[in-house]
Amino acid sequence: MKYRLYYWAEIQGRGEFIRLALEDAGAEYVDVLRSSDRYSMPDSVFALPYLVAGKRVISQTPNILLYLGPRLRLAPRNEAGRLWVHQLQLTIADWLVEAHDVHHPIGSGLYYEDQKREAKRRAADFLAQRLPKYLGYFEQVLRSARGGYLLGKACSYADLSLFQMVAGLRYAFPVAFGAIERRYPRVTGVHDRVGARPRVAAYLASRRRIPFNRQDIFRDYPELDLVGKKSKKT
Amino acid sequence: MKYRLYYWAEIQGRGEFIRLALEDAGAEYVDVLRSSDRYSMPDSVFALPYLVAGKRVISQTPNILLYLGPRLRLAPRNEAGRLWVHQLQLTIADWLVEAHDVHHPIGSGLYYEDQKREAKRRAADFLAQRLPKYLGYFEQVLRSARGGYLLGKACSYADLSLFQMVAGLRYAFPVAFGAIERRYPRVTGVHDRVGARPRVAAYLASRRRIPFNRQDIFRDYPELDLVGKKSKKT
Repeated sequence: MKYRLYYWAEIQGRGEFIRLALEDAGAEYVDVLRSSDRYSMPDSVFALPYLVAGKRVISQTPNILLYLGPRLRLAPRNEAGRLWVHQLQLTIADWLVEAHDVHHPIGSGLYYEDQKREAKRRAADFLAQRLPKYLGYFEQVLRSARGGYLLGKACSYADLSLFQMVAGLRYAFPVAFGAIERRYPRVTGVHDRVGARPRVAAYLASRRRIPFNRQDIFRDYPELDLVGKKSKKT
Repeated sequence: MKYRLYYWAEIQGRGEFIRLALEDAGAEYVDVLRSSDRYSMPDSVFALPYLVAGKRVISQTPNILLYLGPRLRLAPRNEAGRLWVHQLQLTIADWLVEAHDVHHPIGSGLYYEDQKREAKRRAADFLAQRLPKYLGYFEQVLRSARGGYLLGKACSYADLSLFQMVAGLRYAFPVAFGAIERRYPRVTGVHDRVGARPRVAAYLASRRRIPFNRQDIFRDYPELDLVGKKSKKT
């Protein structure tokens, strides 16, 4: 099966979670918008990315991975295993939205400059409250899994996504994330193991990997990389 | 199978999407925290709700519905159909987060009163930009489906969820939503059809249906029910 992925050509964004799965599996695929700026949005699709697989059109990042997982050997075939890795992916999806909303707390269609003050408040809350909650959760899952990956010894698409979260957070919050990441050695361990997988390493070193940049979900605004600023709790 | 649902007893929240599916199907279930305030959070669960089905523990609302769908006859059994209804559900999940973040744009753990100014800006953006985008999308899906429900003539769990979105938006934004809802007759048609389904109607009239309130995802703050305030576009 030759897959066709439709996602913005200039950013990693949500599409990167699909790209990493396709690359790690050595799947044959075309990242369509990287070579052409002409495409149509199918009526069934609310937002990019979408994947075309034969006659199928599938959208919503976690849904695409749900479909691809067993086919790329990045998820178990049995129902319980598929639901478990999908559950982990949905939690990563929630985390990603929050990482994005740090710099766009008022509206994704507005300029960052027009919501900079609100972004500083949201960043403080994200870094003090939310980031440790997500990291602690995945650290615990990895502790129980006992194999170096979220499901144990086999790498799943959720591990590739966790790699991407760590890479993005290190880029966006070098100071704040750097100050706490030692507390989550299993999470950063997944990052290292995934980054060392031969096909992933080759991908990251290639021009197919779009560099992080300030149009993307993760953005390295120093004014949002806050340390030790506690926000008021309820 | 007798299901056990774990979700906050005082709000509809995300748990309501599960309750509606269980109720519409006439499934046997216990809404555990409504009768007991003692529960433990399994290590595998990041946040409520979670569902216990025999030995299985399943979390993340769309994932629970993915599991329940075919079992409750609220989703097709074939893979393409399951992925399609799940894709619709994931878009509703995104929409729900945005509806929540209207009153909590800075942090979910902070008081509304401490982010009221930011909430007004976010409400203006949500109502002017995001709400029409979501409503227009589902109106289009229903236009293509041609049967009164999102998948055609058979009601799916995504239709029950769309009912909940309309009910919540009418409660939270009576003026702003009331001013535009006529443009989306197929969406409000789903609301009416779902609300008239015998088991759903019985549920809504019962004490099992928790009333909307200001601790919930949808909140009727008049100061956020804005009409005609356009926010700056990029």
